[in-house]
Amino acid sequence: MVASLVSRGLDKVRALVGLDEVPAGKVLDDIRRQLRECAEGLGGEVSARTRAARLAETYLQLDDAGRHAFLKIIALEFGPDPARIDTAHARYQSAVGTPAQWDAEAELRAAMRSRRIRILTQFNAIPQGVKFLVDMRVDLLRYLRDDPELQALDRELQARLSAWFDIGFLELERITWKSPAALLEKLVEYEAVHEIRSWQDLKNRLDSDRRCYAFFHPRMPLEPLIFVEVALQEGLAGSVQPLLDESAPLQDAGRANTAIFYSISNTQVGLRGVSFGNFLLKRVIEDLKRDLPGLRTFATLSPMPAFRSWAALHADEVSAAFDDKDRKRLAGAGIREVPSPLFQQLLDSPATWQDPALAELLRVPLTRLAARYLVHARKAGMPFDPVARFHLGNGARVERLNWLGDTSEKGILQSWGMMVNYLYDPDAIENHVETFARAGRVARSAHVGRLAKTA
Amino acid sequence: MVASLVSRGLDKVRALVGLDEVPAGKVLDDIRRQLRECAEGLGGEVSARTRAARLAETYLQLDDAGRHAFLKIIALEFGPDPARIDTAHARYQSAVGTPAQWDAEAELRAAMRSRRIRILTQFNAIPQGVKFLVDMRVDLLRYLRDDPELQALDRELQARLSAWFDIGFLELERITWKSPAALLEKLVEYEAVHEIRSWQDLKNRLDSDRRCYAFFHPRMPLEPLIFVEVALQEGLAGSVQPLLDESAPLQDAGRANTAIFYSISNTQVGLRGVSFGNFLLKRVIEDLKRDLPGLRTFATLSPMPAFRSWAALHADEVSAAFDDKDRKRLAGAGIREVPSPLFQQLLDSPATWQDPALAELLRVPLTRLAARYLVHARKAGMPFDPVARFHLGNGARVERLNWLGDTSEKGILQSWGMMVNYLYDPDAIENHVETFARAGRVARSAHVGRLAKTA
Amino acid sequence: MVASLVSRGLDKVRALVGLDEVPAGKVLDDIRRQLRECAEGLGGEVSARTRAARLAETYLQLDDAGRHAFLKIIALEFGPDPARIDTAHARYQSAVGTPAQWDAEAELRAAMRSRRIRILTQFNAIPQGVKFLVDMRVDLLRYLRDDPELQALDRELQARLSAWFDIGFLELERITWKSPAALLEKLVEYEAVHEIRSWQDLKNRLDSDRRCYAFFHPRMPLEPLIFVEVALQEGLAGSVQPLLDESAPLQDAGRANTAIFYSISNTQVGLRGVSFGNFLLKRVIEDLKRDLPGLRTFATLSPMPAFRSWAALHADEVSAAFDDKDRKRLAGAGIREVPSPLFQQLLDSPATWQDPALAELLRVPLTRLAARYLVHARKAGMPFDPVARFHLGNGARVERLNWLGDTSEKGILQSWGMMVNYLYDPDAIENHVETFARAGRVARSAHVGRLAKTA
Amino acid sequence: MVASLVSRGLDKVRALVGLDEVPAGKVLDDIRRQLRECAEGLGGEVSARTRAARLAETYLQLDDAGRHAFLKIIALEFGPDPARIDTAHARYQSAVGTPAQWDAEAELRAAMRSRRIRILTQFNAIPQGVKFLVDMRVDLLRYLRDDPELQALDRELQARLSAWFDIGFLELERITWKSPAALLEKLVEYEAVHEIRSWQDLKNRLDSDRRCYAFFHPRMPLEPLIFVEVALQEGLAGSVQPLLDESAPLQDAGRANTAIFYSISNTQVGLRGVSFGNFLLKRVIEDLKRDLPGLRTFATLSPMPAFRSWAALHADEVSAAFDDKDRKRLAGAGIREVPSPLFQQLLDSPATWQDPALAELLRVPLTRLAARYLVHARKAGMPFDPVARFHLGNGARVERLNWLGDTSEKGILQSWGMMVNYLYDPDAIENHVETFARAGRVARSAHVGRLAKTA
Repeated sequence: MVASLVSRGLDKVRALVGLDEVPAGKVLDDIRRQLRECAEGLGGEVSARTRAARLAETYLQLDDAGRHAFLKIIALEFGPDPARIDTAHARYQSAVGTPAQWDAEAELRAAMRSRRIRILTQFNAIPQGVKFLVDMRVDLLRYLRDDPELQALDRELQARLSAWFDIGFLELERITWKSPAALLEKLVEYEAVHEIRSWQDLKNRLDSDRRCYAFFHPRMPLEPLIFVEVALQEGLAGSVQPLLDESAPLQDAGRANTAIFYSISNTQVGLRGVSFGNFLLKRVIEDLKRDLPGLRTFATLSPMPAFRSWAALHADEVSAAFDDKDRKRLAGAGIREVPSPLFQQLLDSPATWQDPALAELLRVPLTRLAARYLVHARKAGMPFDPVARFHLGNGARVERLNWLGDTSEKGILQSWGMMVNYLYDPDAIENHVETFARAGRVARSAHVGRLAKTA
Repeated sequence: MVASLVSRGLDKVRALVGLDEVPAGKVLDDIRRQLRECAEGLGGEVSARTRAARLAETYLQLDDAGRHAFLKIIALEFGPDPARIDTAHARYQSAVGTPAQWDAEAELRAAMRSRRIRILTQFNAIPQGVKFLVDMRVDLLRYLRDDPELQALDRELQARLSAWFDIGFLELERITWKSPAALLEKLVEYEAVHEIRSWQDLKNRLDSDRRCYAFFHPRMPLEPLIFVEVALQEGLAGSVQPLLDESAPLQDAGRANTAIFYSISNTQVGLRGVSFGNFLLKRVIEDLKRDLPGLRTFATLSPMPAFRSWAALHADEVSAAFDDKDRKRLAGAGIREVPSPLFQQLLDSPATWQDPALAELLRVPLTRLAARYLVHARKAGMPFDPVARFHLGNGARVERLNWLGDTSEKGILQSWGMMVNYLYDPDAIENHVETFARAGRVARSAHVGRLAKTA
Repeated sequence: MVASLVSRGLDKVRALVGLDEVPAGKVLDDIRRQLRECAEGLGGEVSARTRAARLAETYLQLDDAGRHAFLKIIALEFGPDPARIDTAHARYQSAVGTPAQWDAEAELRAAMRSRRIRILTQFNAIPQGVKFLVDMRVDLLRYLRDDPELQALDRELQARLSAWFDIGFLELERITWKSPAALLEKLVEYEAVHEIRSWQDLKNRLDSDRRCYAFFHPRMPLEPLIFVEVALQEGLAGSVQPLLDESAPLQDAGRANTAIFYSISNTQVGLRGVSFGNFLLKRVIEDLKRDLPGLRTFATLSPMPAFRSWAALHADEVSAAFDDKDRKRLAGAGIREVPSPLFQQLLDSPATWQDPALAELLRVPLTRLAARYLVHARKAGMPFDPVARFHLGNGARVERLNWLGDTSEKGILQSWGMMVNYLYDPDAIENHVETFARAGRVARSAHVGRLAKTA
Repeated sequence: MVASLVSRGLDKVRALVGLDEVPAGKVLDDIRRQLRECAEGLGGEVSARTRAARLAETYLQLDDAGRHAFLKIIALEFGPDPARIDTAHARYQSAVGTPAQWDAEAELRAAMRSRRIRILTQFNAIPQGVKFLVDMRVDLLRYLRDDPELQALDRELQARLSAWFDIGFLELERITWKSPAALLEKLVEYEAVHEIRSWQDLKNRLDSDRRCYAFFHPRMPLEPLIFVEVALQEGLAGSVQPLLDESAPLQDAGRANTAIFYSISNTQVGLRGVSFGNFLLKRVIEDLKRDLPGLRTFATLSPMPAFRSWAALHADEVSAAFDDKDRKRLAGAGIREVPSPLFQQLLDSPATWQDPALAELLRVPLTRLAARYLVHARKAGMPFDPVARFHLGNGARVERLNWLGDTSEKGILQSWGMMVNYLYDPDAIENHVETFARAGRVARSAHVGRLAKTA
């Protein structure tokens, strides 16, 4: 079964392993043999690492099917020995409650230790080895969707990456226009919220009235793990377009009282489940305060990526957001029912947002709807909106809604242009985190609270 | 029981935890409560880390009994849940051989995950957190001697430290007289083979005809993990005293053909069981070859720390090392039996080594004895000599024995001054490692082989 | 006269010096007063520097006329005292040949010391002060063209800059894609030979089969002073277009035997007359040899910027470059006379270079003409071609001519696409420099020598 | 005459220049020939530098007489041409007042340009070239004492060093226990005020309640040019011994309100006449204020190195410092006249300072005498005390006198243990500098002012 997965990449691998013109099965046997040598560590750790490095190179040459087979061999053939686990578990179970429990636990743990992780760890020996493993997990996560037998391997790899990417090992660094070009081009590649269109756009985002911070791992020096873009200004920002406008006048950072986090991007798919994003804003706020003592307010300007798709599923909520006054005004514009095909057409047409009168007509009810969405909408007990989940879990509160805050095509498509400021009040963060964790309560400003109230 | 361990350090802790004038039990209850909060992560990861940092500070203020109690609470009260393990194991056992095995394995692994490691990892958040954990394990290893209930905790901590100190994360750095004084004083403190007597002595060991390398962890910047001192010269070194002599003339490193590793010291007791020493010499040899292409020979000048104590236990071997000619000569010096009290007196008296005639009398038989000791003496299937175990396991061979190579008091006490060169031949290392690992064969030069032959 | 120069920038300056609504003359008086305070150093060196920093800021606010006036005040009013020079010179003249000569010389030198340089030096105190002075000289050189009274000031400034930019203070640094973006954008700005069209183009020039080196001054950290772009390949490069082609396949630098310097750009107009370019190639060659021992040949691929304009002035030379065979072929293409309007049209038409048959027709005679131009054409005793002057003065020899080596519009315009390789043979450089300096002899390969021979 | 200076170092030099067994004169001729080649720059700048490097090596091998001869050749044989100066001066003199003046001035300046500086500058090319020239000037200054013919050379070298060591090029760096040992040992070597006795003493001076700053030149990376040692504490320090006491308890730098500069040392004799010390304290105060906002007071604890030797010359002043009460008390101790041999014996005997009663007897009159010395004593119009000259010229004021502030042997010998605090009040510095420069007025606190008043 494994053999049948290998295909296009085979020739390269044949050449690499020195087996020209052999069938796929033989190639896999050769890989299997090498994996076994890695796992056993014969010839000493030093040469085991050397061998692992060669295997890692082989992996990079394989095509997708080949890689899947490679990982599958590791997953299925290098796991722990069920018989040994059984014995150790029996001893443990009988030792529980006696002084022998703790040694028996250590034994059971030893029996659980698999050779998979030993192999993977040795791949670390190649230059850029950590990045190699993070990227290998990107593959693994993809295969895992259709192949649950990779589960145990993935969990072990995730646990090891969690240990390696412990927050204590990460470095917060400021990124500026003086940073290496090889790093800056990664920002362009990874920016997930508001696309960076050119080097000029990027330079604008690193100007003296901006800040950009990222976490780095000491062994992935030019690879930001997560980064945030900050604008320094007076007062909250309500709209993202001026922030992205390269021709907008430069602000005086020294006089700013507000830091706006207007874009946060995770970069490494292979680190899914390894958390460090929570620490980013905390550390950035500390650094900003030290650097610019005039800053008083720390807030985001955030998208609401699931607002429109949620509304599509909740016609009743949409309807309820329109009170009598709103309906009267809508009727004046020829729309008598909410929702209705005509109403839907109004909402979704770009023309609406460009017509000040029409836009104004929708402002109040949609803002009300957005407030209710953020405060009350839930999925599996958590806020429906993924960005809300992140910031509320970090201790922020919903501060202000901004009608037409993002008028880009993407902004209209996600949330009819609605944006939201989450406020990070250093004195309230801990409290918010706790009440959110315990009771699921969404912290909000008085104004948003009023908007979110339903009849 | 735990409570009774706390004593002297208590007042400090009381002050720290804000509980003046309370009994030890209460203090421990408070610590226990805080540990629980850390383990549960209530209030978000960020504040959990902050709380952990406070706990780490508390730990540092505790006296030995208090620390023991602290670790014991973690060991016994934050382990995995035996019932949950039992259930998960039952499911796993029945899934073995079916497609559900891999998910069940992941589940069992999850059930084994203890909150101990979660707590310890959070201590990482304090500045110098990694060093804190390494030092905490020094304590733990000490308590473990008499308290086997700490076993499970120690194994978990070791596993985590092994992940963190993976060779892929370590940096090989050259240490010179331009290195920070704060780092250099660590060399003085940690040097375990040939004591560094003064800054002048240290400067001599970092001169242009020397090299010094160490492994560092990115989060322990001024803490060498293991370091090696190298002398560059023409031909093998047979005696260590000239190398330590500050007034010896400077050699021209550019003309050297031989690198002598004359001192290797591990520095962190808390990293016991975490291996990286094997990689040090390999990397150092690579760096030296790049830097000084004239180097042809890489060898140690090593002590034989257990030679004399081994000989004390093997009178027959000592006796057999003296052939008829040797005995005749000894008889000429008034000694008729080997071993015998008179003979023993001769061996152990410093006067012997200072008298060229007497020393010469012992040279051949003791060299023979040393060769047999290195090649044949075993403990648990491994070479009896700990330094031999290290170098032979790394792929070196026993190259040459040096009579009176170390005439310091310590040298005489350990091995009657005998020293040995282990040779690292880059082309033979892998082969040596393998035959040593498989068959326990000690690689040796032809000359040492002849000496080691017994009748 | 000075006053009349000030105009547009005045208002800003008025505001700066705190003199609103005052006539230009008053503003200048205020500047003059401040310059005097700088020159006298009253209030201590520290506050003099502070004052100078304010003056430097003032300068930056001035418009062109204002700056000219500013510099003129320094030039004319802060020179040495002619009377004091007269006295010191008289004493010196009478002391010549006596033991008092050396003290008298020092006195005369002291009398010559002007307060101009004292003022300028103090401008150094502002951040980026060195760059400020280099840029100020750009202004000065511009005004000097029409205002010879600035001569003494310019010479003093040049002498000071020469001291500061002594080669011993410059650092050779390799520039890569990991260099700061703020530095890389300077390359785009300063590249003077083959324009850099985009960040992608730039990245291509910094790829693994390229090298880029620049000299830097420790006080101008992101400002390259001069830089060279190098391609690593097998054999001489004859055409520049493949080197600039972003889609060309990457070469393996490790297998290269030839380094081609294909672009050298000076960047700081304000350092005219301060030489360090000579050292650049020498140091780059040293660094390349250390880094890539496989390199054997070091050569340029250079433009001939004045070839076509020289030919326009020397119809006889052009004519002589065509021998009977060449003329016969030309006649076949309908051109009976050289030079002639028809011939000229043939030469200058882009269509010619795109037609292989026509291009081939001109290849041999134009290559011959180019060889004669490089070897024999002179201006003020030196090679007519400025690039030839630079490389021949540095010890290179004319190695090979490359017909249609640069088919860009600029290349055709300057030299009908002809390019030349100058070869740097480390063993011959010193000898070439000397014979070039003494006898003006142009070193050339045997082949170029034959081509350059005239009947 | 020059030849006769060369002696011991000759053999080395002979070997170096390739002239075995030749007389001194020949060696010098060879040096002279090489200097000429350097000066003429034949063979291009690059090889001129190479040649200069060889000459610099030669210089280092010469003994004192040889070096004197070497410098003398440069001084006397590579100066400007008197005839050319004469011509240029005549032209200049006649051009004064005409538009031709400025070009003529530039010409005269060109005629003055000597080849000496060209030679010296080229020495800069060797590694550590700047340090080489600074050290060469140490030699030069020594020879200059008895050989005024070196004057012109010294002035030129000083002018060039002044340009190179312009304050704008120097870097202020904090020195800590993490600084390179190779740098720290320079502090031990150069400390000129309170000798550093050991690495332990040094470590104490770099502890967390101390600061140490130095100026560095970018081309002399491990060579401090001037450094200052600072203690952070509450209130003024009156005695230096507690500051130097390694066993004194550590202060909390965060709570300090006062920074005491207790030692300032110039390190490079070869930079005599090149000033930068004035800037050191200003920059250090700026850095301290930024780093520790709690600091309010910046003051020195300074020796009075010439107090006792001045008193020895001014018996009348000493006498006048004792009023009737003081005399009565002295009489009680058996001393009836001031000054007198008995009195002198009392003053100079170490026993006096160790006897509290005797010491107290002298406290008031000697403090009075010290105040008068600092405020009124002059040498060539400047304060008699060299340390006072430095700090008063920098804008400090005499704040407080400290009886028995330095009870070391040196302290007693210089000033009977008296020390002084000079206060740097950032708001008053500029004003003090100016009144000191204009009117020679010594700024002082009200208390010191009263003490200094004479009848």
